[in-house]
Amino acid sequence: MDTHPTDTADAPASQPEDETPWLTAREQRMWRAHLEVAKLLDYQLGRELQPHNLAINDYEILVVLSEAPDRRMRMTDLATATLQSKSRLSHQITRMETAGLVLRQECPGDRRGLYAHLTEQGWETMQRVAPDHVRSVRAHFIDRFTPDQLDAMYAALAPIADHLRSLRGRS
Amino acid sequence: MDTHPTDTADAPASQPEDETPWLTAREQRMWRAHLEVAKLLDYQLGRELQPHNLAINDYEILVVLSEAPDRRMRMTDLATATLQSKSRLSHQITRMETAGLVLRQECPGDRRGLYAHLTEQGWETMQRVAPDHVRSVRAHFIDRFTPDQLDAMYAALAPIADHLRSLRGRS
Repeated sequence: MDTHPTDTADAPASQPEDETPWLTAREQRMWRAHLEVAKLLDYQLGRELQPHNLAINDYEILVVLSEAPDRRMRMTDLATATLQSKSRLSHQITRMETAGLVLRQECPGDRRGLYAHLTEQGWETMQRVAPDHVRSVRAHFIDRFTPDQLDAMYAALAPIADHLRSLRGRS
Repeated sequence: MDTHPTDTADAPASQPEDETPWLTAREQRMWRAHLEVAKLLDYQLGRELQPHNLAINDYEILVVLSEAPDRRMRMTDLATATLQSKSRLSHQITRMETAGLVLRQECPGDRRGLYAHLTEQGWETMQRVAPDHVRSVRAHFIDRFTPDQLDAMYAALAPIADHLRSLRGRS
């Protein structure tokens, strides 16, 4: 049953005493489909945000900040919430600050560093963009599942998300 | 049935005459699970490649080049295959060249630009790393599905991958 698949869980070459648990053909086609959908969907959703001058990561920041109390978050917490490194987030926030979407400020009485605030313009941008974005998500992903598939996918993915989140927390 | 979910397909605020097709609660929990798994899995697999001094994107390049005829590809084609912009790929290949994994060369008689070649060291690196990587993919993803779930996921995702690939081709 073992195959030597041709993607990122791939076997480089067949070896006589190979004890590596290479993916089977069935496993491999699903793994490949998952990788492709994740990557291509990210690309397509990003592409459809371009007319709004937003990258997909920018949109995520707007959403996360808009849900935070007082529409602001400590940079460290924002990095955790968006699963980014602090340095990468810092670059992104600088770009978004230039665009007037967020503002970095020290919090008086809190020495644990900077906060990112959503500006009024950032809030309005998110409100303007969200309807288009949800249509993209439907057109390219959600509406392509039957209700049963939706629930089955959720049942399969939710425990994996929990598992991965717990590993992340430990890091 | 409409809810105003709290992720990237989110509704910014309830509005009286809102005709946006916001995600339902059922749709939203699946969408969120998909996003989380995609992102956290990428993070975790990347983390487990760190002892090998490889980023997840580096590993992908090694795999793609190792499967190409003569273990080389035109940079433009490599960018397409890995869904990256040419400029981002160029930075990545520069880093990998410094690490001795790939080599950029002009192809005599072909004026359509540079090729990226997998070096012998790149090939050996992939062979050394692949067994660990496939174990990571199993531990954090593949082995967490029942055989039925694997097939159901594939059946749901494969047409979406086709759809997204066809859009990408048109761009």
